[in-house]
This record gives sequence, structure tokens and C-alpha cells, in this order.
Amino acid sequence: MAHIALPQGLPGLLGPMAFRPETAKPPNELADALLQGDSTLTRGERELIATYVSRLNDCTFCSMSHGAFAALQNDAGWDAVDAVWNDPSSAPISPKLMTLLGVAAKVQQGGQAVTEEDVAAARAEGATDEELHDTVLIAAAFCMFNRYVDGLGTWAPTERSDYDEMGRQVVEHGYAASTPG
Amino acid sequence: MAHIALPQGLPGLLGPMAFRPETAKPPNELADALLQGDSTLTRGERELIATYVSRLNDCTFCSMSHGAFAALQNDAGWDAVDAVWNDPSSAPISPKLMTLLGVAAKVQQGGQAVTEEDVAAARAEGATDEELHDTVLIAAAFCMFNRYVDGLGTWAPTERSDYDEMGRQVVEHGYAASTPG
Repeated sequence: MAHIALPQGLPGLLGPMAFRPETAKPPNELADALLQGDSTLTRGERELIATYVSRLNDCTFCSMSHGAFAALQNDAGWDAVDAVWNDPSSAPISPKLMTLLGVAAKVQQGGQAVTEEDVAAARAEGATDEELHDTVLIAAAFCMFNRYVDGLGTWAPTERSDYDEMGRQVVEHGYAASTPG
Repeated sequence: MAHIALPQGLPGLLGPMAFRPETAKPPNELADALLQGDSTLTRGERELIATYVSRLNDCTFCSMSHGAFAALQNDAGWDAVDAVWNDPSSAPISPKLMTLLGVAAKVQQGGQAVTEEDVAAARAEGATDEELHDTVLIAAAFCMFNRYVDGLGTWAPTERSDYDEMGRQVVEHGYAASTPG
């Protein structure tokens, strides 16, 4: 049961966004800018950061949906997602992304947890200032999305196949296309 | 020292937003929608939620700047901010806002920390579904802003008077007016 009277049948973030369309556009535009806008990180890499942070925050809807988006945009599919969830150091990802996931995990704990050593480790693998910036903001943004989704007690489908169609829509049309109204 | 090469002289959020203007617009529009858009919570009440969560996250820039914005928009000025920071239950605020700050504090811990009892306590003081929604999203959004500001190691002025001019600008012109470019 959600904590407030949300429209029926809409999972996760979609319920609160339909309930309060006045505040739905900026978060969707932020997701587009961060996850689908211009970046030297691939879309698949950025979605792995998003689902990883969501998993650390134990948010079913965001970890499953962005897991689906990551699976669609990484050659290893759900295997890449499972590996990142379980142990990034053994995942089929670049050493650079591994260190950026380390930065993201610190951001999940709190902004001040990020150390010069975390940043230096990412730089040593070739991460640029822009990639560090985007990693911090993606991780921070999912600390918002995860709390929005779970702080209102929304429901989430639990089967991977439940996220297939949402995945195809988002990969093709972006996030802002799902803004209500 | 910031973790990446940010433009000189810009405190807190302003540095990263100038560094990466492509991602600056949606967060500012979100702040406007949440803190200055239509709501049955006053602007001063919403800024108290923002500065309270920022203080719980130990984010100097956001707690001081939104403290200044709250001080300008509450009759008790900085006294209201100090009281909310130290002990909301003794602050010169409505019983309804007190319970909403309780919900916000749970969101700061994590979305799943919010209980039916927290929500029922707010309802008992007259909080509506929309006010509960906005409280959860404001608290969640500041868990993003705080991590963005501190995860990149930005600097922040420490004197209240350093935030006076920023306060007047934001209260008069809103947040989106400070989007770079």
C-alpha cells in the first residue's frame, strides 16, 4: 500500500509522477540529460551506475528498471547487471567504470565519503573530470529517485520480463517521453 | 580543493553547474517547482524542510543557503532555522510542519525508513497527500543536491552574511534564474 492515494496500476516512479505532474518534468529531463545526453561514458555504462546505486539503496523499482535499461545497452545483457550488483570487481566492465562505480558507492553513502584516493583511482584508469562529474551526479540523482519511489511506498513488479516493454520505450524514446500530461 | 577542476570563485552548487551547464537546468527547475511552485505549504515551510535535510546530511552550502532562504521567508528569521536544526519539536513552527520534518528525516535515512506511523502522525495534524508527496520529494531532492555539492568537494562560505545576497536573488527571481548559459 502506497503512503498516499496514487493512481492505480502505475509502478514505481510513474504513480507519483502522475499524481503530481507539476513536479514530474524536471526529474525526467534530468534523467535524459544524465543517462542519454552527450557523454564519453556509453549509455550502457551510465545505466550500470544508475542500477548499481539503486541496488545499494535497495530500491526494487529503480534497480530493476535501470537494470533492464542497462541489460539492453550492454553486450553482456543481464549478466553485466548481475555481476555489477554482486561484485563490480568481477564484472565484464572496463577498469575505468569499475573505479567510477567505487566513486558512486561512496556518493551513495554521502557526499563527504568521496575521498581524493577514490578520485585518483578513477583518474589512473583514464576517467576525465566530466566523467567524474557525471558519475557523482548520476549517483546523487538516484539517491533522490530511490527515496522518492520508496519514501511514498510505491509498488514494483518483481520479474525481469515485467520491465522489458518499459526498457524498449526508454531506450528508444528517452525519459521525458514518459512525463504525464 | 574540489575533486575536479571547477570554475574559480563559485561556491557550492554553482561551480558544478557552470562546469556542466548541460545538466544544470533540470535541477534548478526542480528546485523552483518544489520550493516556489504552487503548494499549500508556504515557501518558508518548504525551505525549512530543505535546510533541515541538508543539515542532517551535514552539507554546509545547502544548509546555509536554504537556511538563508528560509530565514527570509519565515517571521522568526534565522531563529526558526536554528530551532529546526537543533530540535524541530521546540521550533516556532506548526505541529503539521513538525510531523512533516519527521517524515523528511526518515527520507534522509532512506526511502524505506518512512513508516505508516510517520505518515499517520502527519495526517493527524492535517497534512494532505500533496503535502506528504512534496515533503518526500523535497527531502529526496536534497539528498541529491547535498551529495552533488559534497561529492565533488566544492567549497562553501561559512558566514550567514555571505548568503544574504544569494537569498535576496533566489527569493525574488527563483532558482532557474541562476542556471548558467
